[in-house]
Amino acid sequence: MPKHKLRIIPLGGLGEIGKNMMALEYGNDIVVIDAGLMFPGEELPGVDLLIPDISYLVERQKSLRGIVITHGHEDHIGALPYVLSRLSTPVYATKFTRELIRVELKQRGVKTDAKLNLVSPGSKITLGNFAIEFFSVCHSIPDCVGLIIHTPLGIVVHSGDFKIDYTPTICEATNFNQLASLGAKGVLLLLSDSTYAELPGYTPSERVVIETLDRIVSGAKGRVIVTTFASLISRVQQVFDVAVKYGRRVFIIGRSMREIVSMALKTGYLTAPPGITCRLDELKTLPHNRVMVLSTGSQGEPTSALVRMANRDPSSRIQIVPGDTVVISATPIPGNEMVVSKTTDSLFRQGANVIYDKLAQVHVHGHGSQEELKLLLSLVRPKFFVPIHGEYRHLSLHASLAQSMSIPKDNTFVLENGDVLELGRDSGEVVDRTHVGVIYVSGLVTGELDGAVLRDRKLLSRDGVVVVTIAIDSEGGKLAERPRIITRGIVDAGEGQKLIEKGRDVVLAALNHDKRRLVEPSFVDAKVKDSLSKFFYERIHRRPIIIPVVVEVGKTHKKPTS
Amino acid sequence: MPKHKLRIIPLGGLGEIGKNMMALEYGNDIVVIDAGLMFPGEELPGVDLLIPDISYLVERQKSLRGIVITHGHEDHIGALPYVLSRLSTPVYATKFTRELIRVELKQRGVKTDAKLNLVSPGSKITLGNFAIEFFSVCHSIPDCVGLIIHTPLGIVVHSGDFKIDYTPTICEATNFNQLASLGAKGVLLLLSDSTYAELPGYTPSERVVIETLDRIVSGAKGRVIVTTFASLISRVQQVFDVAVKYGRRVFIIGRSMREIVSMALKTGYLTAPPGITCRLDELKTLPHNRVMVLSTGSQGEPTSALVRMANRDPSSRIQIVPGDTVVISATPIPGNEMVVSKTTDSLFRQGANVIYDKLAQVHVHGHGSQEELKLLLSLVRPKFFVPIHGEYRHLSLHASLAQSMSIPKDNTFVLENGDVLELGRDSGEVVDRTHVGVIYVSGLVTGELDGAVLRDRKLLSRDGVVVVTIAIDSEGGKLAERPRIITRGIVDAGEGQKLIEKGRDVVLAALNHDKRRLVEPSFVDAKVKDSLSKFFYERIHRRPIIIPVVVEVGKTHKKPTS
Repeated sequence: MPKHKLRIIPLGGLGEIGKNMMALEYGNDIVVIDAGLMFPGEELPGVDLLIPDISYLVERQKSLRGIVITHGHEDHIGALPYVLSRLSTPVYATKFTRELIRVELKQRGVKTDAKLNLVSPGSKITLGNFAIEFFSVCHSIPDCVGLIIHTPLGIVVHSGDFKIDYTPTICEATNFNQLASLGAKGVLLLLSDSTYAELPGYTPSERVVIETLDRIVSGAKGRVIVTTFASLISRVQQVFDVAVKYGRRVFIIGRSMREIVSMALKTGYLTAPPGITCRLDELKTLPHNRVMVLSTGSQGEPTSALVRMANRDPSSRIQIVPGDTVVISATPIPGNEMVVSKTTDSLFRQGANVIYDKLAQVHVHGHGSQEELKLLLSLVRPKFFVPIHGEYRHLSLHASLAQSMSIPKDNTFVLENGDVLELGRDSGEVVDRTHVGVIYVSGLVTGELDGAVLRDRKLLSRDGVVVVTIAIDSEGGKLAERPRIITRGIVDAGEGQKLIEKGRDVVLAALNHDKRRLVEPSFVDAKVKDSLSKFFYERIHRRPIIIPVVVEVGKTHKKPTS
Repeated sequence: MPKHKLRIIPLGGLGEIGKNMMALEYGNDIVVIDAGLMFPGEELPGVDLLIPDISYLVERQKSLRGIVITHGHEDHIGALPYVLSRLSTPVYATKFTRELIRVELKQRGVKTDAKLNLVSPGSKITLGNFAIEFFSVCHSIPDCVGLIIHTPLGIVVHSGDFKIDYTPTICEATNFNQLASLGAKGVLLLLSDSTYAELPGYTPSERVVIETLDRIVSGAKGRVIVTTFASLISRVQQVFDVAVKYGRRVFIIGRSMREIVSMALKTGYLTAPPGITCRLDELKTLPHNRVMVLSTGSQGEPTSALVRMANRDPSSRIQIVPGDTVVISATPIPGNEMVVSKTTDSLFRQGANVIYDKLAQVHVHGHGSQEELKLLLSLVRPKFFVPIHGEYRHLSLHASLAQSMSIPKDNTFVLENGDVLELGRDSGEVVDRTHVGVIYVSGLVTGELDGAVLRDRKLLSRDGVVVVTIAIDSEGGKLAERPRIITRGIVDAGEGQKLIEKGRDVVLAALNHDKRRLVEPSFVDAKVKDSLSKFFYERIHRRPIIIPVVVEVGKTHKKPTS
């Protein structure tokens, strides 16, 4: 009989897309799966990225046995630089994933003594009470794995991010036999990717994209510029293949694309005949119908190669000309829709023929749709089920799918970050909710998402700021001059001047109302804030942040500073 | 031979979705079509709405003959309160549209002496050299019209917003005979809706929604809560119809839904048996399987009825309970995707079964897809073609469609706001680009979108603000005290304090470097800004707005204020 219960604690990625991180705990052993980041949208200006709050792990550092990574996407590895600078623990990852982790650590300038251990599909590691086997799954980056975790209570299967692709172009197809034999033996818990639990049917194979690409390139009279995710090596492979077929050479533009393609060629994840890529000077001499370009920028990132082309940035090494075909071989990640649309518009404006997801099947995504999720459920046949990776609606719909396949409702747990699920052999229960805040990174500042800093930024962005200077004659206890007002982000200079003059009158009147109390700074502060808040709301329906600066003048004669 | 050329000047809605407005000019006659607004996304915090810049019209007020409105959506009528408070000109609209314009004017508190004239499909008005006939088109609001504009140069057809629905539930089907006979006679110019020019095939009929709704309601054991656009009366009609069929009563929640439904019932646009709606006290006594709720909030508007239900707002008159079915009978308008997703997530969290566009066909949109656009082109057979209403890519794709139907490329004009297209009988040319800025409305403030106010707000939202107070002893020409620093939106209080102390040292050092110049305010100002900008960038990779406040102390003794 096992001594402890098994605890599952999501620290990120449940009830949201991104920053995936989960702790599995048995007795004094904690294993962490993934450590990702997420990029916020325009609702968090100035915030570069969000990472999980790991205080739960920091407090239990002694029990931490290691971090196991399922694949190399930012939403699974991007928090490692921050995590490893606070926690020293071994990391386990496949080869391609480990390369990306190294890049990530280097880019953030993190030096760590944490060991980056290599694992591969079929290999097995033991971390305390957990014995973990890896099995390959297909997704949109090479070397993805799912996990078979042997615990004293039974087997836990973690799907990683996955789709089922019977004809993958790069990754190994899922090992159904292994999963089916586990299912026959009995699996305690399945943790399965819910990202596309909304979509009925099957996700198409990566292979369908090649047909579209082939058709586009065979008909194109000019250059064909393809943008996709740099790590989507199977897509990059297809671009190389179609280039070879039609006698085009490939120019690669954008730092991350150059880096990852070069790494993938070196490590054998990508195969291409020698001389297929070309340099900038060669590009300039090639006829346009002998050129393909592979570019970053599929998400409309402001400084990416594609966006610079779209905006006719003079520093761009490629300028769009009529006759160019641009293929956006990606879909916008939620939150990026507007910037991707703007980029598409700008490319059309330059005269390009732009082909994107709405017009042709130039992209397939990397997550399983409902029938694939059901297939995994029916292979693994778990006793308990926890949908992972997704917004709440995805988790909820995935749970319904599982219930439709006879997993009892009581054995299905829709968790959110911080929930502590405790499983025995026969029953499970959410026993606690630990506080997991969200940590933002803004430049070199990190902080809690719900702190004052971001709240203030939000207010500033909506309503602007007013600085009011009150000079008080410390001897006379009266105003030494008319209050001064500086505003930013409120009204244009012209009309603003009148408003500001009125505002000065309002402050003056408010302070003069009770002159004896001018010596009390808190009185002055409150009066200024109250009177101006009211004034601005009445006049322009805005509530700017008001910062009173109270200075005593005449002071130097009593307290010289030098 | 006509004396003048025909000028077409888009003032809004071309190269963007929303705030549609276009001027047609012949000699001394200007006719304006539509006057809409648009709602900005999170990239413009604090901005309530955007409207077209009408300075072109204000400068030519004497020539302005009237504003013709195609239908009552905000993106076609929403700027009228602002336009009519600057320009007095008659407005022409159909009955339902006119009702909505009246509501709009009342809500914004605009009093105008502009006459709101009633027109109807088949009626004809003369505005200077323009004779305008109206024909009904089908869209997602009652009483939509397209325009047949007789000009001295020939006939201009304006599609309005349209789809082709052979089995509409409310609007009249498009009058093909009239358009076809025009096409046979010869049409100079077609201006046609491009919003869905990306989509191949046909837009489904409004009627397909009833099948989905019927299936949902017949299977629902609890309440069915449907949210949609208040003005989508055909959808509201379907909700009433299905409620009648299954013996449910309808509770209407949300101000705009109550107002528009009540208006539509009164004016006969909506028909329902008496007693079908119910009051709150009745709602409370009805069994849940006898209730339908019709709610605002389909776009995730923060104060809408649906969002308040989703967030368990205690002031909400309806609280979600498990067993409730929520039907989101709408798709998110671009930019609203995230808030709609969050609302959906929250409804799932409350235990509702939420059905939305990805899961079932609970919505069809109101714009024609490619085959419908081609049908209109082939009926009207225009000499010149200008795609209207859409982002640049939609216009561009619509132009390609027209060219694929043998309209010469030289006769197809992809315009953007401000372009001045001049048409003769045989050729056309963009002769000018007038400056049309975008005007934002933020509370009671309006201004140019590219002005300093919004730029400052953007900076404030990303990097925060620093107020630095420098007290200078005017007699000694030295600092009277250590510089003071107040920050907002930069760092949390704890860590921030150290940073601020350092910053004070930095300012002190910078100013002490050249003490003699402390009497020059511009010197102090520049030194403070430079030294702190550099400091904050180095320390935290942020560039806050820095506001120096320089106060001379010791002054009162020379210049008493009282």
